Order: sequence, then structure tokens, then C-alpha cells
Amino acid sequence: MDINKYLEKQSAKINKVLGSFLPGKGAHPSTLHEAMRYAVLSGGKRIRPILALEACRVVGGDTRKVLPAACALELIHNYSLTHDDLPCMDNDKERRGRAACHMKFGEDIALLVGDALLTLAFKVLCSKNGVRSALDLERQMNAARLVAEAVGSEGMVGGQAVDMEFQDKDMDLATAEYINVHKSGALIAVALRVGATLGGGSEKQVQALYRYGKYVGLLFQIVDDIMDRQGYAKVIGVSEAKKEAEALLGKAKAEITPFGRRTAVLEAIADFVLTRDK
Amino acid sequence: MDINKYLEKQSAKINKVLGSFLPGKGAHPSTLHEAMRYAVLSGGKRIRPILALEACRVVGGDTRKVLPAACALELIHNYSLTHDDLPCMDNDKERRGRAACHMKFGEDIALLVGDALLTLAFKVLCSKNGVRSALDLERQMNAARLVAEAVGSEGMVGGQAVDMEFQDKDMDLATAEYINVHKSGALIAVALRVGATLGGGSEKQVQALYRYGKYVGLLFQIVDDIMDRQGYAKVIGVSEAKKEAEALLGKAKAEITPFGRRTAVLEAIADFVLTRDK
Repeated sequence: MDINKYLEKQSAKINKVLGSFLPGKGAHPSTLHEAMRYAVLSGGKRIRPILALEACRVVGGDTRKVLPAACALELIHNYSLTHDDLPCMDNDKERRGRAACHMKFGEDIALLVGDALLTLAFKVLCSKNGVRSALDLERQMNAARLVAEAVGSEGMVGGQAVDMEFQDKDMDLATAEYINVHKSGALIAVALRVGATLGGGSEKQVQALYRYGKYVGLLFQIVDDIMDRQGYAKVIGVSEAKKEAEALLGKAKAEITPFGRRTAVLEAIADFVLTRDK
Repeated sequence: MDINKYLEKQSAKINKVLGSFLPGKGAHPSTLHEAMRYAVLSGGKRIRPILALEACRVVGGDTRKVLPAACALELIHNYSLTHDDLPCMDNDKERRGRAACHMKFGEDIALLVGDALLTLAFKVLCSKNGVRSALDLERQMNAARLVAEAVGSEGMVGGQAVDMEFQDKDMDLATAEYINVHKSGALIAVALRVGATLGGGSEKQVQALYRYGKYVGLLFQIVDDIMDRQGYAKVIGVSEAKKEAEALLGKAKAEITPFGRRTAVLEAIADFVLTRDK
């Protein structure tokens, strides 16, 4: 299997579903909806929804049951990017090689775009999505709650709050680790957990994939830190951070070996997260 | 029944539940959680959750099943106030007689407070809350989806976007009406719908209470407009707006008369919305 072609194909499928969830440019109010589409349909790698779909596939589930929730995670990722780019946060003027949402549409619209994308994600997570059985319904509500926990004040938003607090301060190792686990780690980890849950995996399978997700999430942030010489890499030094990254890659792969076949994509994604250059 | 005493009692009950949903000051990150508590536990009138509880009572439901969802609506109301007060939006420095969240904690924290409150609302809406039966579970997920629809880009957030767009422009009647229906009307209307749905009301009952909610939501915004000489009152004139408000009060009450008894509180709230002076 050509992994890059596979990821491209998955990504195209996800983009199509994302496009169908976002109200069209004609929908009132048109500027807000245009800005939402601009923020989301701008060529991200769609790692989080792809991970959710793979977790489902690995436990032998029907990926069609996971696709809407997987795309909801991407909506949440894009809401967080849009808010993080705002002047009162990281004040980033570009995103994915073009003007950040607030540079193109104004701060007020960018703020509302983030709010609307987060809300849309929960609308998708709480829609029936073809679900019929009581068991599926229970799993789905469970998944929606897990997502809310992962991205709230004790998850992703909490990580961003601590990151802002230490923007101009020296941080200790515990703080660097807290940020890594929460700021980007929480959403990646919950993508695996949600995929495995909706795919009908056993509790043991769900937990193993969740741990894989936690390791990959940490790996993702540490690689970012190494590239930017920030956070974790600044606290423990680049060479130590690289060792830690290698160790995390090993731990992530160890979690998925018991699944035997079907794990090629999850292994490849872990490798990709370590070796990516942006 | 002394309506004011009754509302105070309900409001105290709601505040207690809200306090239990918000992570304590000790929970990490402490500043974010302190700011969340500051934004929510600051003496609002709790009209939305009270309306949800009354809708449930009117259809003969068990209000304990509605209390968490009712409080989630109040979390959403407070997220929207916190974001609306930000400098890039309405730039309000005070809220409920004290410093707005961003004045006390900074813009970055206030932005994250709003994000976290919205997320917490959906965590509550998607938690089991003692629900056991498949029917209750289905109603609950349905309610969560209705809330997401009401407060997203085609609901409350859409109303705020249009309001921002026309901040310094003359607006026509259609625009003023759009803002009134969406900006504050949508959340009030869905409070009734959710209360009646979770209370197990028939579709006919749910729709009647939903219409009552729409009229009261509109009434609420028109009274605001009359007090501020803004929006709707500016477009059609204060005396016409007052006539419209009286008409809405009549329509709202007409929707609940078929329920016979138990509607005293809903009637009193409609009266209160018309006669309140802030």
C-alpha cells in the first residue's frame, strides 16, 4: 500500500463530508458562512479524522458510523486554530500559507467562526447519523461526552490557557508536559478513543488505542517543540527531546501490535508525525 | 403564589447546580476556572433555565430530568455574554454591575472562558444525568442537537454576526427582525423546546411551548431595543415597537392557555419580560 496515496484518498473523503456539514455560501448570514468555509476548507492534513477512522477499522468496525464524528473532530481542530490565531492569543497572521481568518474577515467574524465551528461539531456529534440501535445511540452520546471532556477547560482549552500564561515566562518540566498533554494531545488522543468506541471495540481495545493516541499526541507536540526550539525542547534540551520522541514512537507502536494486521496506517502515521518537517 | 419568591427559589437551585458543574478554584488551570466561575456565578436572573423547568412542569414531566440541560443553557448564555463583551465585539467593560470578564482576567482568558463554557454545556447535555431508558436517551440526544442548532451559525451566533455587521449602518426591518429572532430569541425559544422535550411532552405540546418561547424571546429583544432606542425600535419607532410588544405578549399567553393550570409562572415571566426595566 502506498501510504501517501491512501492518506490523500481519506483526506479527500473527509473534505467532502466537511463541505457538506458547513452551510453553503448562500446560507444567511453569508459572510459568517464564507469565513467558516475559509477556515476549514483550506488544505489541512486531516490527521485527527483519519486517526479516528483507522481506530474504527482496527477494531473491525464500520467506518461509515465514525465518519461524521471524525469530521466533527476536524471542525473542533479548526475552531481552536481560528481562536488561537487571534491577536489576543498567539497573534498569527498566516495559517496554512494564507491570511489567517481574522486577517481576512476581521476579528469579530473570526471569533464567531470559532464559536460556530465548535457548536457545529456538537450538532454533528449529537445527530443520529443513521444510528438506529439503542446500543449505537448510547455509544454515540458517550463519544460526544468524551469529546467535550477532552477539549474543555480540563483538556485542550486548559492547555491553551497554561500556554498563554507561560508565554513570556520560563516554564518547568511539569508545565511543559501539562501543555503537551492537553493543548494538542487531548484532541488527538480522543480521536482514537472515539473511533474505537463508535467502531464497537471492546473496552480493552478502546483503552489500547487511546494510549496509542496519547503517545502520538505527545509525540506531535514534542516534534513541534523541537522544530520551534520551544516548550518541552527548551526545558530539557533538543537532544533529550529527540530521545523522548523516539521513545514515544516505540510506545505508540507497542500499543497497536496486539491488533495484528490492519495497523499499517497507524504505524505509518506515527512515523510521519516523528519525521514531518511542519 | 408569590412569583418573585418562587423565581428566587428556582434561581438558587439553579445556581447550586451551576456551581457543581463548574470545576472548583483548586482545579488546574486555576485562573481559567476562577474566571469561568466569575463569569457564571455573578447573579444573573436565570430566565432560560427557569423557562426550561417550567416547560417540563407544564407538560407534567419530572423537572429533575431537565435540571442539568436547563443549566447547560445558562452556561451557553454566559459564554455568549463573555464573548460579546470582548473588545473586538461590543467592547463592554461592565457586566452585571462589575468588571467584565476580559477586564478582570484579560482578553485571552475571557476568550477561553467562553470556549470552555460552551464546551462544558455540551458535556452536560451529553452526560447521562441519571437517564436509563432508551427513550430518555433518544430525547436527550435530540435535545442536545436542538440546542446546537439554536445557538450555531444559523441561530444565536448568526444573529450576533449580523448585529456586528450593522453596528454602524442603518438597518431595514427584515434585518432588525432577523437579529431579534436569532441573537437572543433562539436560545430562549430552545429552552422551552428542550424543557418540554425532556419532560416527555407530546409533539403538539412541545410545539406550542416552542412558539410561546419564540414570542417571549422576541418580546425580550424588543423590550431591550425600546429601552436602548436601538434596532427594531429605531426602525419602526418606539410607539409601534410598544404595540408589537403588547401583541407578542398576547400571542405568547394564547399558546399556553390550552395547558390549563400550572401556567401561572410562564404567564408571569412573559409579563415580567414586558415590564422589566433592565
